[in-house]
Amino acid sequence: MSEFIKSGNERLDRQLLFSAEIDKMTSILRRTVLIDKSRRENDAEHSWHIATMAMLFSEYAPEPVDIGRVVQMCVVHDLVEIYAGDTFAYDVKGNEDKASREKSAADKLFSMLPKEQGEMIRALWEEFDARDTADSKYAACMDCLQPFLHNTLTDGHTWNEGKVNRKAVEGRMGIIKEYLPKVYEWIEKNLDNAVEKGWLSVI
Amino acid sequence: MSEFIKSGNERLDRQLLFSAEIDKMTSILRRTVLIDKSRRENDAEHSWHIATMAMLFSEYAPEPVDIGRVVQMCVVHDLVEIYAGDTFAYDVKGNEDKASREKSAADKLFSMLPKEQGEMIRALWEEFDARDTADSKYAACMDCLQPFLHNTLTDGHTWNEGKVNRKAVEGRMGIIKEYLPKVYEWIEKNLDNAVEKGWLSVI
Repeated sequence: MSEFIKSGNERLDRQLLFSAEIDKMTSILRRTVLIDKSRRENDAEHSWHIATMAMLFSEYAPEPVDIGRVVQMCVVHDLVEIYAGDTFAYDVKGNEDKASREKSAADKLFSMLPKEQGEMIRALWEEFDARDTADSKYAACMDCLQPFLHNTLTDGHTWNEGKVNRKAVEGRMGIIKEYLPKVYEWIEKNLDNAVEKGWLSVI
Repeated sequence: MSEFIKSGNERLDRQLLFSAEIDKMTSILRRTVLIDKSRRENDAEHSWHIATMAMLFSEYAPEPVDIGRVVQMCVVHDLVEIYAGDTFAYDVKGNEDKASREKSAADKLFSMLPKEQGEMIRALWEEFDARDTADSKYAACMDCLQPFLHNTLTDGHTWNEGKVNRKAVEGRMGIIKEYLPKVYEWIEKNLDNAVEKGWLSVI
């Protein structure tokens, strides 16, 4: 990779270097495939997709959400995976040390930025992970709804591959059941269908 | 592609179908290559990248911008390319009928959504294109800065391929010169370097 000629303004250089670094999100592959099944989706695509979807479903939430904040949360929610890698939602072992891997990644990545900007993005990521505010619950719903939509439209591709059962998906979709119950009704219909089609096992 | 079982709530079904449709952004290729040069970037990745960058550079703008709005504008600014295709910034002929192709695409795409949501997204896209508000000028700066960064870090890959000259790039970066002059100083240094390295022709 070539380097760019620095501006001489250290603050601006940090912002530009960080902007270049995060392009690596395009090579962090998820288990989910694109809806056209052509290939696996990457973190940049997934983050864009849930950010855009976040503009559409807030009417089903039980309390007001700040869409502008949620969209920002969505675009940064997986940045730590640049160094920590993607952890498959249904991988029990991989999820054991996920928190510590992601914390180290956050320390490394966010310290590239001017201090208060690194802290601002880190705070959004931590809020997203904690799921204890309206905005983060809603963002988490989008993060679960999008791969569910992909699985449903690709004959349960990732469920099949990971030998996932219905109970595990129900558990993961719990946040939607709690926070967007109207959307969960749709999920439930499609869970029934997925089991019927053999895309998901019953136990 | 399989279909999903509809919810029976027409409004929700429209929102879900639109969410599935926009996954096609992942197959709209741009001329720009990823910074690791592995392949061309797609519209979903580009939209995500400029949305995230928009969280970092507003301090260089001459007036307050609403980052939450800008990030939303960034994630939707290229949606019409799902049907209209990407038009290379330096393609004079392709840019002649770009507006009419994109208008038809917008009519088709945004009418998939509940009326007021389609109108909301269309309004953001139109504002982005018109560049006559603080938010849209700033968003346009991100849309120009990101490919400049990519070109600079890939030995002018896209400039070389398109036989682009310095003047054309300067023209395209005019919005940054006007709106983020501090960032333009950095651009100028890297333009000098690009010409010196032979990545850009002088005329």
